[in-house]
Amino acid sequence: MEKLTIVKIGGNVIDDSEALHDFLRDFSAVPGKKILVHGGGKIATELSGKLGIEAQMVEGRRITDIETLRVVTMVYAGLINKNIVAQLQLVNCNAIGLTGADGNIIKAQKRPVKVIDYGYVGDLDDSSVSAKMLNNLLEGGFVPVFCAITHDKEGQLLNTNADTIAAVIAVAMSAQYETELVYCFEKKGVLKDVNDDTTVVRTVKSSQFEDFKADGTIAGGMVPKLQNAFDAIHKGVAAVYIGKADELPMLNKGIFGTRMEA
Amino acid sequence: MEKLTIVKIGGNVIDDSEALHDFLRDFSAVPGKKILVHGGGKIATELSGKLGIEAQMVEGRRITDIETLRVVTMVYAGLINKNIVAQLQLVNCNAIGLTGADGNIIKAQKRPVKVIDYGYVGDLDDSSVSAKMLNNLLEGGFVPVFCAITHDKEGQLLNTNADTIAAVIAVAMSAQYETELVYCFEKKGVLKDVNDDTTVVRTVKSSQFEDFKADGTIAGGMVPKLQNAFDAIHKGVAAVYIGKADELPMLNKGIFGTRMEA
Repeated sequence: MEKLTIVKIGGNVIDDSEALHDFLRDFSAVPGKKILVHGGGKIATELSGKLGIEAQMVEGRRITDIETLRVVTMVYAGLINKNIVAQLQLVNCNAIGLTGADGNIIKAQKRPVKVIDYGYVGDLDDSSVSAKMLNNLLEGGFVPVFCAITHDKEGQLLNTNADTIAAVIAVAMSAQYETELVYCFEKKGVLKDVNDDTTVVRTVKSSQFEDFKADGTIAGGMVPKLQNAFDAIHKGVAAVYIGKADELPMLNKGIFGTRMEA
Repeated sequence: MEKLTIVKIGGNVIDDSEALHDFLRDFSAVPGKKILVHGGGKIATELSGKLGIEAQMVEGRRITDIETLRVVTMVYAGLINKNIVAQLQLVNCNAIGLTGADGNIIKAQKRPVKVIDYGYVGDLDDSSVSAKMLNNLLEGGFVPVFCAITHDKEGQLLNTNADTIAAVIAVAMSAQYETELVYCFEKKGVLKDVNDDTTVVRTVKSSQFEDFKADGTIAGGMVPKLQNAFDAIHKGVAAVYIGKADELPMLNKGIFGTRMEA
């Protein structure tokens, strides 16, 4: 089976132009077919501030109202996405910048209102991604670069979690490809001691996940992150890597970072 | 030869959400392969105003400084382009929203500084468009939707005239397709009397262009517009239509508007 690598980078890399430049050079060197998914960073918050749009919070949760959706569409799909594409083109990586609306590749459902109305937020499931249209781009020689915006196919754009976008893409493409998912974040991987970057756990098997949660190695925000990773593996993704963006070339070779596997 | 229709809409349609909705429904009904190119409208100017970015003018010409480039990238490539894509998806037109940087489909040259430094503005020529990558999208089942942003392949995005983008695309694709170019603007076509919409000139042949200029039928802003149209025809485009956006279904059938032909 042909290999397909899906890499997700977070806002911390987006906000640091030098780190982003280095990361994009490394991403362009990832061999074979590949897809990039990027988060948002601080620029949208800064622009909202300049425009006098206050962050809407309900019970501590951020709400995407219509004004905020306009801002994130401008910043994520316009400014950030197209500058990433232009920088990848400079290093001869034939990037094409997308939201989930483009080619109807990622169709989300507007989050149903239960206790909180999150506003224009999209939820994804295993049927959200059109593997066929995404594959048409890969076969056409393009390197898709997704921002964290999708749509509902009813004319509405939706703000959507970038980690989840990367995971549902990896799952959807795993019928056709040996898919590997690489999450770049601020730590060097799963750490035995969260304050000591030298204590990276090299491999976490599905069977070890419960033990690691019980002994506190995996705690806090790492629990849902790794839960998503193992969900993806159970649904056909070959391997998931977590580590630092500046170690990308070593992450999916299993030299640095943490590899999660069945 | 298979037919390919390239439609350009201006800012006046973009700024009127009802007119835009109707136009996109009509565009989705254009048979066969098609491409949309859209202008900017007033939103970028409004956003610049809110952000306190003053329009830079030199000798009456608008300059795209780096702050203005950021704004137009957000508004054209983000807000406008992606909302057009989402609305086209609603009417089952499989749109994919692009700048010229995406897939390196339109490579421009930053306008050389002569008397005036226009800033981050891209100029196009007959070698700017990658017909191969654009055709890969058309063959993949996508309907490309271009905003008026290109790049220089050196990592720099560039503000670029939408009329010109439409023309160079039509010319570049005419080796493979019978290309027709439709310019939608605020008038019903070339008018014998510019103040009387009932005086549409139905056909202008290349051989008549000089006569129409001489007798004043074609004057002012119509001169460069039609010059571009005939240039495109001389370079292989089968026909160019000019007319009102709300008459799109009748324009490229030659029922309304003006048809320019060799």
